[in-house]
Amino acid sequence: MELQSPEATRIMVAVNESSMKGYPHPSISSRTAFEWTVSKLVRSNVAEFRLLFLHVQVPDEDAFEDMDSIYASPEDFRHMKERERIRGLHLLEYFVGRSHQYGIPCEAWIKKGDPKEIICSEVKRVQPDLLVVGSRGLGPFQRVFVGTVSEFCAKHVECPVITIKRKPDETPADPVDD
Amino acid sequence: MELQSPEATRIMVAVNESSMKGYPHPSISSRTAFEWTVSKLVRSNVAEFRLLFLHVQVPDEDAFEDMDSIYASPEDFRHMKERERIRGLHLLEYFVGRSHQYGIPCEAWIKKGDPKEIICSEVKRVQPDLLVVGSRGLGPFQRVFVGTVSEFCAKHVECPVITIKRKPDETPADPVDD
Repeated sequence: MELQSPEATRIMVAVNESSMKGYPHPSISSRTAFEWTVSKLVRSNVAEFRLLFLHVQVPDEDAFEDMDSIYASPEDFRHMKERERIRGLHLLEYFVGRSHQYGIPCEAWIKKGDPKEIICSEVKRVQPDLLVVGSRGLGPFQRVFVGTVSEFCAKHVECPVITIKRKPDETPADPVDD
Repeated sequence: MELQSPEATRIMVAVNESSMKGYPHPSISSRTAFEWTVSKLVRSNVAEFRLLFLHVQVPDEDAFEDMDSIYASPEDFRHMKERERIRGLHLLEYFVGRSHQYGIPCEAWIKKGDPKEIICSEVKRVQPDLLVVGSRGLGPFQRVFVGTVSEFCAKHVECPVITIKRKPDETPADPVDD
């Protein structure tokens, strides 16, 4: 019986940065989601999959974090935006580099906006076979008030969604390292 | 870079019957979930996956459907239970047969009880890498009051979960054929 679909299985992986300050690292939950996808789904079958990395940048997120910055001229804002762009590129570089090491074809891009809304609209536009999102595994209390991007996507996205929960032993001691 | 985990990826697929009366058919949502898993995840890589089919039978479900039966002796109840068992076996036979056609190793078993609770406890016991559940895609109104097995599992199960929604064009004209 013929198993292969004519086209590769396209898996969109939503990735974000760690909330640690400084050099951009992928968040633990993004890395976990990526590594799970590769080791459990793609496995050795690299030719039949394609990974699509989407990074959504929340506008001005960095500006709010950067409490010690002083903005005195339009140029300061340009610098800020440029820094933000570079951080996003470094993040994608990490995932594209990892995929390349594994030999899995991939694409990666950045969008700005509200992560849950952008992820849904990008799924509509790009039509992947599967969306993979990491989850920090908020407790029930936080979840009621905050909700999570992963829950929103699972409800609203048209394609199947896998939420990869971070393992309990990977919870950073300081939530700022998340 | 080494991609293969030493062991196959074990995917548990929760399957149920169509609510059509008569000879047991897999439900449209079960078949959709199974075929999606094979065509999008397993693909040609049959040696690195293992499918675990779990069918949860709700006790006495058939008895309530069988409104024209008369139970007059303990033997009548034995017959009913025997019929139920055979229906479950036919259902598993379908999925094991399909897997065999594809060349994918599999196991299948039946449990009795409340589907959402049994699925969660079986995931705990069997520790699959992934749980796949089909969903009939209830409307928002039905969902508020009924909830769905898939939503419950996605929240309570320890492993990642994929919910495969039935395509809108696969909704049967008569809900009894679901």
